[in-house]
Amino acid sequence: MATPPSARARATVNDVALAAGVSRQTVSNALMHPERVRPQTLQRVHTEIERLGYTPSTAASSLRQQRAGAVGMELTGQGADTLSDALAPFLVSLTICAPRHECHIVTFGSDGGGPVLEQYREMWRSRLVDAFVLMDTHHDDPRPAWLTGHGIPFASFGRVWDDPSFTAWADVDGRAGTDAAVEHLVSRGYGPIGFLGWPAGSLVGDERRQGWADATARHDRSHATLQATTEQRFPDAVAAAGPLVERVGRGGAVVCASDMLALAVHEVLLTRGMTPGRDVGIVGFDGSQSARAHGLTSIAQPYRAIADELLTQVHDQLTTGRAHSTGSMLTPTLVAGSSSQP
Amino acid sequence: MATPPSARARATVNDVALAAGVSRQTVSNALMHPERVRPQTLQRVHTEIERLGYTPSTAASSLRQQRAGAVGMELTGQGADTLSDALAPFLVSLTICAPRHECHIVTFGSDGGGPVLEQYREMWRSRLVDAFVLMDTHHDDPRPAWLTGHGIPFASFGRVWDDPSFTAWADVDGRAGTDAAVEHLVSRGYGPIGFLGWPAGSLVGDERRQGWADATARHDRSHATLQATTEQRFPDAVAAAGPLVERVGRGGAVVCASDMLALAVHEVLLTRGMTPGRDVGIVGFDGSQSARAHGLTSIAQPYRAIADELLTQVHDQLTTGRAHSTGSMLTPTLVAGSSSQP
Repeated sequence: MATPPSARARATVNDVALAAGVSRQTVSNALMHPERVRPQTLQRVHTEIERLGYTPSTAASSLRQQRAGAVGMELTGQGADTLSDALAPFLVSLTICAPRHECHIVTFGSDGGGPVLEQYREMWRSRLVDAFVLMDTHHDDPRPAWLTGHGIPFASFGRVWDDPSFTAWADVDGRAGTDAAVEHLVSRGYGPIGFLGWPAGSLVGDERRQGWADATARHDRSHATLQATTEQRFPDAVAAAGPLVERVGRGGAVVCASDMLALAVHEVLLTRGMTPGRDVGIVGFDGSQSARAHGLTSIAQPYRAIADELLTQVHDQLTTGRAHSTGSMLTPTLVAGSSSQP
Repeated sequence: MATPPSARARATVNDVALAAGVSRQTVSNALMHPERVRPQTLQRVHTEIERLGYTPSTAASSLRQQRAGAVGMELTGQGADTLSDALAPFLVSLTICAPRHECHIVTFGSDGGGPVLEQYREMWRSRLVDAFVLMDTHHDDPRPAWLTGHGIPFASFGRVWDDPSFTAWADVDGRAGTDAAVEHLVSRGYGPIGFLGWPAGSLVGDERRQGWADATARHDRSHATLQATTEQRFPDAVAAAGPLVERVGRGGAVVCASDMLALAVHEVLLTRGMTPGRDVGIVGFDGSQSARAHGLTSIAQPYRAIADELLTQVHDQLTTGRAHSTGSMLTPTLVAGSSSQP
């Protein structure tokens, strides 16, 4: 009988101690009281912890005894001056869901440039929080591997793209979202359906593009020439939206990878004397307030469900010392506004 | 020699006990351990505390001994689905400033409809936080008087309009902001300068209108017919902006009470084939991200300075038991974009 994956041999504190040539106590100190360990030794222990994929159950059991009852959230993942549209609604959802999970939310951050990982370490070591929720993870984001290596419980809003084996996440199914956007536009009678997205290589963006490509292919619509890409900056998006609007033409529609891109299409239509919806359909992505304010149809993120799932995940890690075996993919919902009303 | 206001007789715990017909210990319990007091008695004590304006110094001294090192911030003052544009940048500023004030920020909130004051009481009584920062106070907001009555330290982003004697606030000088907007537009050579604001009676709005009225009068510009009002909803703002844009005409400009109103003027110009800035100037208020994205000139709120001031105020209340004798009025800064470039 094959050994199931969940029962495969896990590295123990002994394995780490042996590999690093130190005592078990030193490994424990390296994790719980790093100030008691010489820097060189600390470095060696952490190298072995990461190499062996060791998850210290001692940390989990210590947390069980002495809980802060708090989950930390960094507010500066994207820099204080370029806040994600998702930040405020997600944080509100996390805050409102927290009492159901017997915890509260502590925010932290810096102006950037500073050693962010050091802040995570300090927050956790001083028992201000028991765990973290991350958002806006990205390629080469050092946080997930570092937190895992230090045995610090966390869950991520968004998959950890650099580590497909990481399971403590909740995310929105971008492909299902843009697929639903195409179905909606087809049912409303729009003709050519284009896509305004980000340059290839952004994994969130690629997934959102794929949903549009799959759905247009299913409806036997040619789409190869109906896509344009732009960085997530409004003036660039307006420049990219102009030629795309011309190619889809009156009676056509544009699915966008974000609400900001959708607002750019909206602006292009207005400057050309066209009415969003009546002349050209638009569907955005994220369900942001500014999309709603402008009457844009958008694919809304289920922030409450995401927050609940992430807090369940950190709670389970704290009580069992283990992450769920799979992440949680949630389906977003299309919220119709006037921009897809022909 | 007249007694200075700061030395006037303050209600004591004896006054409250006498008025409520209970012992001093019961008054103390009502504040620190309400679960030990019968509901009817609790009600009577709180009624007298509020009537007499009693601020319990015992609470302050107890806090000195046993600090949470945390300041609470409610995230649902305006309802979870209509978040203020200011929420995310202000909370980020508060979070980043907090370590300088030896504290961290704990968020809390509810879906609305629930007893919000009860949440403040629980947060404070369970020592999860030492004090609160409020934002979005408004007419008939029960929070300031309730917190004052319970001797719970707090400071408010925005004046407490119902209580001009309240001093623990930091706010932005709206009048100076719109005055600077007019000066900027005059120096850029714009002709008639209109104002798009909220209906009279919103005190923030009235102040912003006044700055525009004062400055246009100073430049001998008639303005009586160049104002329009709208609720803070995008479609309403677009409807109100149309006739106003016609009255100021090409070469004129519009100062707006918020960035959302400025975006509405922006949209009206686009639909009429006009270019913001070149044809009609626009200045918004708040310095929001969406204003920046659209190239709008805006009056930016100094969130960092506000956060620093509020955390100083709560820290001083916690250490001295007293609020500053005056609130802190901060001057906003005009950030020029293309919408005021003729």
